[in-house]
Amino acid sequence: MKPLQSYPRFVSIEGGEGAGKSTVIHALRDALESQGERVVSTREPGGTPLAEMIRALLLDPSHEPATHETETLLMFAARAQHVRETIVPALESGAWVLCDRFTDSSYAYQGAGRGVDEALITMLEHECVGIEPGLTFLLDIDVAAGRARMHSRGGAPDRIESEREEFFERVRAGFMQRAEHAPERFRVIDAAQAADVVAAAALTALKTYRS
Amino acid sequence: MKPLQSYPRFVSIEGGEGAGKSTVIHALRDALESQGERVVSTREPGGTPLAEMIRALLLDPSHEPATHETETLLMFAARAQHVRETIVPALESGAWVLCDRFTDSSYAYQGAGRGVDEALITMLEHECVGIEPGLTFLLDIDVAAGRARMHSRGGAPDRIESEREEFFERVRAGFMQRAEHAPERFRVIDAAQAADVVAAAALTALKTYRS
Repeated sequence: MKPLQSYPRFVSIEGGEGAGKSTVIHALRDALESQGERVVSTREPGGTPLAEMIRALLLDPSHEPATHETETLLMFAARAQHVRETIVPALESGAWVLCDRFTDSSYAYQGAGRGVDEALITMLEHECVGIEPGLTFLLDIDVAAGRARMHSRGGAPDRIESEREEFFERVRAGFMQRAEHAPERFRVIDAAQAADVVAAAALTALKTYRS
Repeated sequence: MKPLQSYPRFVSIEGGEGAGKSTVIHALRDALESQGERVVSTREPGGTPLAEMIRALLLDPSHEPATHETETLLMFAARAQHVRETIVPALESGAWVLCDRFTDSSYAYQGAGRGVDEALITMLEHECVGIEPGLTFLLDIDVAAGRARMHSRGGAPDRIESEREEFFERVRAGFMQRAEHAPERFRVIDAAQAADVVAAAALTALKTYRS
């Protein structure tokens, strides 16, 4: 398998529903920009016109459910596009890239959550993605607390948000397992804390990472 | 890698643009139905509501071009869905399935045509498709002759039809290589012949296959 290339300025933000990823991304972006850095914020699945169209297919509840393999392949199709068209060009130009979810989400949602063979995910990561973040924030929160926050925001749940609680318990455990296997890359933050406390913890970790 | 399961009643029809696949499929279908067999005709990419939506994404020239890996993953996402939702249920119910293109097209178009690593295609075939036809017709025709037939039908070319001639030469060679490596499964028919001669050759081959 091809090795993964790690980019120091590539930062992913991972976590379950309602963990507060957006708040952290805004805080990181503001901090980097205030120090004169260029920042590209992006998200998965999505981040290019075609990848956003794949996202719409994935989350749209109007067609028949995707099989687990199909869901996995669509996620990686969007990711391969996003990496080549958006993420790598931005990194090569010297910008920071803050990405709301990346490959760890496939290990957590499709692997731990759906039960897709981890070997397939690893192969897709190495053959079709080829890169990994230098730094990953995992915003960890109790499933019930995260879902309560998400519901308080309102709006109809999409296809993945409609899953049952046991699914999200497996996803949370899958994320923690990823963090345990790559402690040098991951910073796990207790996302049950107040939003400003979570953001402050992320900023402190970023400062240490850069120094 | 998981082994592929071969289904005797699963028949794929492969070939380049303008090779006359539709005429052959109609002839095979009529022959089987006239002998009391149930027949499901389907096509790739497509064959389920979600897979048809993926097909539309693949062939739509309005968004940025898919990278070669993204195109390959989208093809296999649609195929995984098609196999689980349409093809295997039909085969398990005892029907014949006539499929306009299947995995050989990915080896020819994405592999030989685009230069995607054949090992990736083989891995996706074994891990996400898992089945292969018992019988495959390859309708082989000179690239220029096939394209002339296609253009005489009119209509705007889709994303893949807009490729250059050298691309289609590689695709044709890729199909022939597939046929050479699996002679027990493939029946190669000279598709430059008149449509009724091509259909008659396919019907003779089907009769021999069934006896």
